[in-house]
Amino acid sequence: MSVLVTGGVGFVAATLVRRLMDRGERVLAVDNLSRGRVRNVGSAAADRRFTFIQADVSDQAALRDAVISHHQADPITEVWHLAANSDIPAGIRDSQVDLRDTFMTTFNTLALMEQLGVRKLYFASSSAIYGDHGTKPLTEDVGPLLPISNYGAMKLASEAAISAAAEKFLERALLFRFPNVVGVPATHGVIRDFILRLRQDPSCLHVLGNGTQQKTYLHVSDLVDAMLFLADRFQGKLAPFNIGPVDDGVTVRFIAEETVAAVAPGAAIEFGSGDRGWIGDVPRFSYCVAALRGMGWQPTLDSAGAVRRAIREIAQEERAG
Amino acid sequence: MSVLVTGGVGFVAATLVRRLMDRGERVLAVDNLSRGRVRNVGSAAADRRFTFIQADVSDQAALRDAVISHHQADPITEVWHLAANSDIPAGIRDSQVDLRDTFMTTFNTLALMEQLGVRKLYFASSSAIYGDHGTKPLTEDVGPLLPISNYGAMKLASEAAISAAAEKFLERALLFRFPNVVGVPATHGVIRDFILRLRQDPSCLHVLGNGTQQKTYLHVSDLVDAMLFLADRFQGKLAPFNIGPVDDGVTVRFIAEETVAAVAPGAAIEFGSGDRGWIGDVPRFSYCVAALRGMGWQPTLDSAGAVRRAIREIAQEERAG
Repeated sequence: MSVLVTGGVGFVAATLVRRLMDRGERVLAVDNLSRGRVRNVGSAAADRRFTFIQADVSDQAALRDAVISHHQADPITEVWHLAANSDIPAGIRDSQVDLRDTFMTTFNTLALMEQLGVRKLYFASSSAIYGDHGTKPLTEDVGPLLPISNYGAMKLASEAAISAAAEKFLERALLFRFPNVVGVPATHGVIRDFILRLRQDPSCLHVLGNGTQQKTYLHVSDLVDAMLFLADRFQGKLAPFNIGPVDDGVTVRFIAEETVAAVAPGAAIEFGSGDRGWIGDVPRFSYCVAALRGMGWQPTLDSAGAVRRAIREIAQEERAG
Repeated sequence: MSVLVTGGVGFVAATLVRRLMDRGERVLAVDNLSRGRVRNVGSAAADRRFTFIQADVSDQAALRDAVISHHQADPITEVWHLAANSDIPAGIRDSQVDLRDTFMTTFNTLALMEQLGVRKLYFASSSAIYGDHGTKPLTEDVGPLLPISNYGAMKLASEAAISAAAEKFLERALLFRFPNVVGVPATHGVIRDFILRLRQDPSCLHVLGNGTQQKTYLHVSDLVDAMLFLADRFQGKLAPFNIGPVDDGVTVRFIAEETVAAVAPGAAIEFGSGDRGWIGDVPRFSYCVAALRGMGWQPTLDSAGAVRRAIREIAQEERAG
């Protein structure tokens, strides 16, 4: 018996795979290697209980061909579906990107599960499904859901397709609404962006926007911990859960200052104008994780701690090349 | 200048097209004729201000090819996007149906609008996006949105894609969340189904489910009236609106009895068991139309009146063949 992880060697999946294997699971990771790397899972890559197959989950036939013989030899009992586009601005420039990588990956994963009779699904959704609600606390029952990026739209579309599948054939489906997640292996994001810019010009960091954007951040290790916690505890059939820290978050200015202090002490910081960095970026929101907190989970790091740890990790990763 | 109506000779669109032309609009109707018929628009079909082009909106290249030369000669200023699958059970049997006909039609319509610079969109969404919330009143801000049919899922996916497009390039997008709609030309639905069964066996009507399912129904003429009312009044950029009557609805038993009385007086009625007719059918919900009512709109017919009128119209249509 094995667990299928789609996008299985990507940013969050790399940590998830290691944790699943620490728990004794056999893992089949499928990834198109567009952003993921097999080395991301570390020593687990050499473990006999780990199988990697390169395939594009957005290609229904390729996915089925990749998985079906493995399933016949070692039946898949649950799926952690993490394959998705993670570059939100790219998806805004070209709506095909999130259609294919964020939504069709979900549609195809569901079609495969129905065909193979796999009935448990854990899904990496996103706080981006909510859209811009100003300062209204975003609990799981907030509506209307009006995402402002194609990424958020196709995550919501994925939730919707999973919900219909739960009515038809799934026994369990958990929708993890991810916050801003930081850590390594970093493929994108504000911290990596700042570090790369400071490598090019260690004297000055130019920041898009006025730096007042305030968001909460969760470290990837805490995120995976929350996912496994919910998978163990939740006994219902279908539910969305916000995952995040409980603090008020940190500003872009804080991240810029901490990054400068860590990798280019003394560099000047220049801010732009406006409270949005790019189209699709929600300037400020109040993400409510009371449901998860009420079940007894809390992160080891708050937003400031997660950002500081991620800066150290990403700086080290960049030095290592 | 003209108005594009996708699915333009289908059930709701046929009434909409006539009303738009009554208001002086020039209309371009695009439809793949899978369920629609040009004759549905009646005398409007012969009007010089009406253009029909057969094309499948789920095929992006076919849609663009169909529309682009018309747009160059007679610029499209707004789109009423009604093309969709309307057979919910068919979409549950095969999830490709709603992916293609309910969601990809929306995705392609948005891509076309962005390409042509058309910035006003009126969209036929559905109360099916809400899923089963028991007796909780379904206002537009209810969550989580967990549809139980692929139809509802792909309507929600469509809303999400439109929402992201509103952030990027749309000036106005209205999401009309349709209730159960009755009237002619009927292509499906409980009334037509009952009438067809009674034609086969005028002595007895067999009803799926126990007949206690209670729903509200709106006549298509009132639905189109509400859509035009909202299009005229709403001055914001993007919003969903529930459309429906304000009564508590009628039961399947009521519809069966009224249909028998109208087309096969004296026929027996036999009920099945269970409160759901089929997978994906929400047994009972409390659909709240306070926002629309608060703007000053109300239907001319309540649920009972809409059902009675539709029974007469569909019976006449079936007799006419």
